[in-house]
Amino acid sequence: MEHLRVAAARITRFSAATLYCKNFKIDGKLSLLLQKTSIDGHSISENSRNASSIPPTLSLSPKKCLKASPARPGQKSIGSNCKGTKLILKTPKGTRDYHPPEMTVRRKVFDKILDVFHMHGAVEIETPVFELKEVLTGKYGEDSKLIYDLEDQGGEILSLRYDLTVPFARYVAQNRIGNISRYHIARVYRRDNPAMTKGRYREFYQCDFDIAGSYDQMLPDAECVQVIHQVLSSLDLGDFVIKVNHRKLLDGVFGACGVPSDKFRPICSAVDKLDKSPWSEVRREMVDEKGLEADVADRIGEYVKLNGKQDMLDALKSDERLKNNEDAQAAIKELELLLHYTSLLECDASLLLDMSLARGLDYYTGVIYEAILKENQNGEDADSGPTSKKIKKKQEGEEEDEEGGAVGSVAGGGRYDNLVGMFDAKKRTVPCVGVSFGIERLFTIQERKIRQQGIKIRSSCTSVLVVGAGKGMLEPRLALCALLHKSGIRAETSRKMNPKFLGQLQHAEEHGIPVVVGVGESEVQEGVVNVRCTATRQETQVPRVQLVAHLQQLLPTLEKL
Amino acid sequence: MEHLRVAAARITRFSAATLYCKNFKIDGKLSLLLQKTSIDGHSISENSRNASSIPPTLSLSPKKCLKASPARPGQKSIGSNCKGTKLILKTPKGTRDYHPPEMTVRRKVFDKILDVFHMHGAVEIETPVFELKEVLTGKYGEDSKLIYDLEDQGGEILSLRYDLTVPFARYVAQNRIGNISRYHIARVYRRDNPAMTKGRYREFYQCDFDIAGSYDQMLPDAECVQVIHQVLSSLDLGDFVIKVNHRKLLDGVFGACGVPSDKFRPICSAVDKLDKSPWSEVRREMVDEKGLEADVADRIGEYVKLNGKQDMLDALKSDERLKNNEDAQAAIKELELLLHYTSLLECDASLLLDMSLARGLDYYTGVIYEAILKENQNGEDADSGPTSKKIKKKQEGEEEDEEGGAVGSVAGGGRYDNLVGMFDAKKRTVPCVGVSFGIERLFTIQERKIRQQGIKIRSSCTSVLVVGAGKGMLEPRLALCALLHKSGIRAETSRKMNPKFLGQLQHAEEHGIPVVVGVGESEVQEGVVNVRCTATRQETQVPRVQLVAHLQQLLPTLEKL
Repeated sequence: MEHLRVAAARITRFSAATLYCKNFKIDGKLSLLLQKTSIDGHSISENSRNASSIPPTLSLSPKKCLKASPARPGQKSIGSNCKGTKLILKTPKGTRDYHPPEMTVRRKVFDKILDVFHMHGAVEIETPVFELKEVLTGKYGEDSKLIYDLEDQGGEILSLRYDLTVPFARYVAQNRIGNISRYHIARVYRRDNPAMTKGRYREFYQCDFDIAGSYDQMLPDAECVQVIHQVLSSLDLGDFVIKVNHRKLLDGVFGACGVPSDKFRPICSAVDKLDKSPWSEVRREMVDEKGLEADVADRIGEYVKLNGKQDMLDALKSDERLKNNEDAQAAIKELELLLHYTSLLECDASLLLDMSLARGLDYYTGVIYEAILKENQNGEDADSGPTSKKIKKKQEGEEEDEEGGAVGSVAGGGRYDNLVGMFDAKKRTVPCVGVSFGIERLFTIQERKIRQQGIKIRSSCTSVLVVGAGKGMLEPRLALCALLHKSGIRAETSRKMNPKFLGQLQHAEEHGIPVVVGVGESEVQEGVVNVRCTATRQETQVPRVQLVAHLQQLLPTLEKL
Repeated sequence: MEHLRVAAARITRFSAATLYCKNFKIDGKLSLLLQKTSIDGHSISENSRNASSIPPTLSLSPKKCLKASPARPGQKSIGSNCKGTKLILKTPKGTRDYHPPEMTVRRKVFDKILDVFHMHGAVEIETPVFELKEVLTGKYGEDSKLIYDLEDQGGEILSLRYDLTVPFARYVAQNRIGNISRYHIARVYRRDNPAMTKGRYREFYQCDFDIAGSYDQMLPDAECVQVIHQVLSSLDLGDFVIKVNHRKLLDGVFGACGVPSDKFRPICSAVDKLDKSPWSEVRREMVDEKGLEADVADRIGEYVKLNGKQDMLDALKSDERLKNNEDAQAAIKELELLLHYTSLLECDASLLLDMSLARGLDYYTGVIYEAILKENQNGEDADSGPTSKKIKKKQEGEEEDEEGGAVGSVAGGGRYDNLVGMFDAKKRTVPCVGVSFGIERLFTIQERKIRQQGIKIRSSCTSVLVVGAGKGMLEPRLALCALLHKSGIRAETSRKMNPKFLGQLQHAEEHGIPVVVGVGESEVQEGVVNVRCTATRQETQVPRVQLVAHLQQLLPTLEKL
């Protein structure tokens, strides 16, 4: 117990205390030991500050952070609230708190997405979280039932936004904007059935990039595909496929197969289910529920299984039924142009024309697209078959997102040329095309990656911890912090009068603070400080007046995260 | 008209066209001329892209951007919606859209605030926009009527958050957190009477920094005052005062003056109104509405007019009535410590103890503070009297925020040691202290400053515009964009097949894009591009293979905003 006595002795010189500390290699293991040891009646490992129950470098646990089931560890039932009823301490169904390490992951994902949006000259806007209910009315078809309404408390009738696209169209119409490329990153609200482990929430982020304005055919559309390609590449999520289709091609096929035009949208909705249900079930819906003749459904069935690139378009161009169909021929020409432009933009490798892609929302009028991650991220499902096979697999059983499973579509969008016109008295419209990233799913994947790779995440970005050796060092510590802050150096110090010396060093190690600046009585008298590099445990004595300059040189070399 | 004929001629070489352009000094004035001139039947100034009705470098107009009155220019009544009723195209009462230049200002304000929060080792969390209604119940006193409730659509009863403090306390209790320093920047919701030009909205940002955990007396409290000082200094808003008081000092004074203890909170609420009403009115409320005896009220009146620093504390220490009042004496000791610590932290210059400060919310238990900008920002009100006089002026007629007027309090907070315990079955609590910045007001001030100084704001951050001279340049332009994007260079090009050459250059000038990379037929044949610096109009011919390296050297020198 010799060493413990050394530590317990009054330490008034920084270096002596540090020597002790070096001998004991303060790290994760030792900290466990220290927690059970007490000196002077205090726990020696008592953290001087921020000893949060959420470890600062938490390896993300999905059970802890992502679920909101009744078994959620953080959820507590407290005795009673002021009304005497039991209050379950939880976030509302389908929502979650974001803890500091998760926020750090999220910031990084956002930053990468923003880099791409900025690459395309996009500007940022923000709209209110709620809109007049009427603004949302008639835009989402049967999904309208998922809209959160606010209580009528006198005044306007409001609803929480369901997506960022309709508020954007309202914004363009209201402000009479001719053209704009804007991005908007914000949360939207859907009273859907949540599946938290799959990253499906009732409150979730969307990250939208849209181009409004009259431009030449397919140039903005190709740019949106490029944006998807660039974002998913930069997030390094493994292989992905960007499925592309065209609403007018679908309509042309429906017409050519004999679908009455008033059934185009309901039949399109049925096709949309092909990403979750097999053809047999979709066909049943078309025939039994939507009253389509069986041979018409079978003809559609021949088309929706097609996918490819120029080869698919060539086949469709020479298809007998589509030859004289104007919609189909126009769409085929547009898709050819899209292939050409995306090739020039070097983002066509992951592109796949897919006739089964329909997209849910009614407002699309042209090209539509959706991005899907091709394989799981931990290699468990080592399916090395051809792309189309893997895609088919997703189609048949999408969203079985256990650890490492599929998370489904991570981005989607398309052209919607008539939405702005719905807000204009004279039906003056502005053609639009855009893409929305399903951020929560990207987070879920990134968090999983971090767990699997055992990466530690720093949640704070303090550069310097100012510590005192021995009692009575509060005043020099505060003065040092003030000095460093004035030069923009992120420095913190314990919020205790006389924190344990070892506890302070341990705090620096646990929180990954790269530099410790230490003072004891002797240092104060001599007008110096000790600068200790946390990683190497190397120490340098520096005159106090040279401290800022010293750190400004040292820190950039240490803070490469 | 010789020059117009030159422009109309087919331009196939970049430099020739630029020469023309140089002769005409394309700038704001010329662009007006060009808009009225047409060549080949097209408007020559037709912007190739992003010719938004919101100018990219808009000088912020308060009337255009900040008001939401019925006269709001952006607000339109459209014929009828799908139900046949008139739909007024607007954002909900008390809310606004943020346009791109405003978002740019906001990002800058946020960044400066974040820099300070990070200086203090704070980590970030996020909570849902709504909470179970019960979580908010009983926390806000009479302000509870301002809470937005969601409609009961089956399931949980929810309300939009009213501030970030109560959700934070819920977060700490639910996750059993012992200590944390966290920040949270998010919008909160209050069905209050909006005053948009004063930066008072129903949906507005709060920027909160809070320290939860058991630390030594006044150290976290002093740090919060330091954070206010650092944020307001870094935003460069002119002089400010941080008024400080202590709830226990107020309670001590009330007790010593003869207020019955069950009337402490109502009388405290009355004192809180001193920032808007004169003493005579507050006294009337105490006596007529709250049943206080007149001489008791008069005694309180003597205390609430006190302010100062150590001198005020010295006076209170020797005050006959307070001598034996434990609450008051404990609070005085704490305030002395606060003065000492803030002096060490070099943030006491703007601090003023002020006995009239009471803060509205019930949950404060210790030190309370509020920051107020001392003078208007355009010098119209050149009152150079002593600090206390200026403060008094604000107290009597706060928030007369015409252009350049007062915007009132921009930050506030205090210690709330019992709030977390309200969420715990065993009433186990975690002491907390924090500060909240009224961001919208800071935006309002920053926007005003920008208008007054005539600063132009760039909303996009494109570095390079790729332009084509003559027809048929789309493919080389797209390929150049792809090339630059791969190196992380923010490059955009027109979304038209054959945009007007001059329109492209004009786009670069109007949007402040620092570099134009141009190609014509000859350049393509020779494997070169023209690199034009927008500011100097200097041109260099660079081999295509050296373009990326050339720009990586050039751009950092040009992009100092």
